[in-house]
Amino acid sequence: MYNIGRVFMFRVPEDNDLLEYLNAFALENKIDTAWVNVIGSLKDIELGYYDTFAEEYLINRFNGFYELVAGVGNISLRDGKPFTHLHVVIGDRTGRAYTGHLIKAKVYVAEAFIVEILGEPKLVRERVGRKLWLWKPYRLEEFK
Amino acid sequence: MYNIGRVFMFRVPEDNDLLEYLNAFALENKIDTAWVNVIGSLKDIELGYYDTFAEEYLINRFNGFYELVAGVGNISLRDGKPFTHLHVVIGDRTGRAYTGHLIKAKVYVAEAFIVEILGEPKLVRERVGRKLWLWKPYRLEEFK
Amino acid sequence: MYNIGRVFMFRVPEDNDLLEYLNAFALENKIDTAWVNVIGSLKDIELGYYDTFAEEYLINRFNGFYELVAGVGNISLRDGKPFTHLHVVIGDRTGRAYTGHLIKAKVYVAEAFIVEILGEPKLVRERVGRKLWLWKPYRLEEFK
Repeated sequence: MYNIGRVFMFRVPEDNDLLEYLNAFALENKIDTAWVNVIGSLKDIELGYYDTFAEEYLINRFNGFYELVAGVGNISLRDGKPFTHLHVVIGDRTGRAYTGHLIKAKVYVAEAFIVEILGEPKLVRERVGRKLWLWKPYRLEEFK
Repeated sequence: MYNIGRVFMFRVPEDNDLLEYLNAFALENKIDTAWVNVIGSLKDIELGYYDTFAEEYLINRFNGFYELVAGVGNISLRDGKPFTHLHVVIGDRTGRAYTGHLIKAKVYVAEAFIVEILGEPKLVRERVGRKLWLWKPYRLEEFK
Repeated sequence: MYNIGRVFMFRVPEDNDLLEYLNAFALENKIDTAWVNVIGSLKDIELGYYDTFAEEYLINRFNGFYELVAGVGNISLRDGKPFTHLHVVIGDRTGRAYTGHLIKAKVYVAEAFIVEILGEPKLVRERVGRKLWLWKPYRLEEFK
């Protein structure tokens, strides 16, 4: 069980890679755990689909501008540094939606909301299999 | 008007039904009101579309693994117990997005964020029509 | 850096325009800055895609009922009044997803979650180009 710490709401400057920027933002502000929402517009996007059999991400590429409709994710520690895990929904000019695990994308406009989470135990990503980095699962009494 | 209580951020263990797990989590932690965000990966998913004329949910089924991109919803009381209402966006291996009211799905990975809401009056779901369970609407002065 | 103020969680009454209602709600409750999540069901929806070359929104229209799956956005000041900026994902009866910047839509059911943000400096939307209203970007030390 955790509590809420600081709250950050800001616009990411144009042309930065969204994930690199959020990671740098977290590092500069000493945020190690947080929940994240983002909306805006992205360009030249790579989204991943985790193939559970191959144990790797398939990459889908989207060139040009897309609305960033729902970026939902979190920040937690991986290798001792804040790591942003973000899933996004993007929309093309006809309103069709595409979606996946954000690998990379340049920002056209991005309005971010970051809620810092305070408390113990820290959520830490550890490698599971070839490519997944996961927190320890939380086991309810009745599901143990 | 409400305040924020406890905050929960955790990984749901693999192979549980996502909604059953969130309901059990809320019950064990005595959460009766909350806002919820979830991301991850789901399998064997049923999504509902509410048909307002038939007054029932049409079910769309998705077999296999899908990215869980934006699970957005809430917890409130229904029949005296915490009830999770979650809408999700899921993505296939080509990045195509599908979406609806979550009926059931098994967890592959799910990272949940739950913000407890404290205060009165409690939000309670009551049956409206054949299949909808809704809170009382909030009427603004100027819209009354 | 900001703090969390009041929290609002409520159902928007049927047949109101979602954005007009959220703006009126913010005005009545004196909310000038907030983060917003909404789920539910909408009808007769117009979604925008920002065409960066033409510098205007292309409008995609969706008649009839759609699940409102992830409404993600914020409230901040524009021309001295609270202005709701909301991106939405909607789903049709087959589960297919569409998405964009919400221009207008009537509510069938909408469950809203609004987190007030307190602190300085206030986020204010100013016109950039022909149709965009943006906050000042936040520049990290290392990106300056």
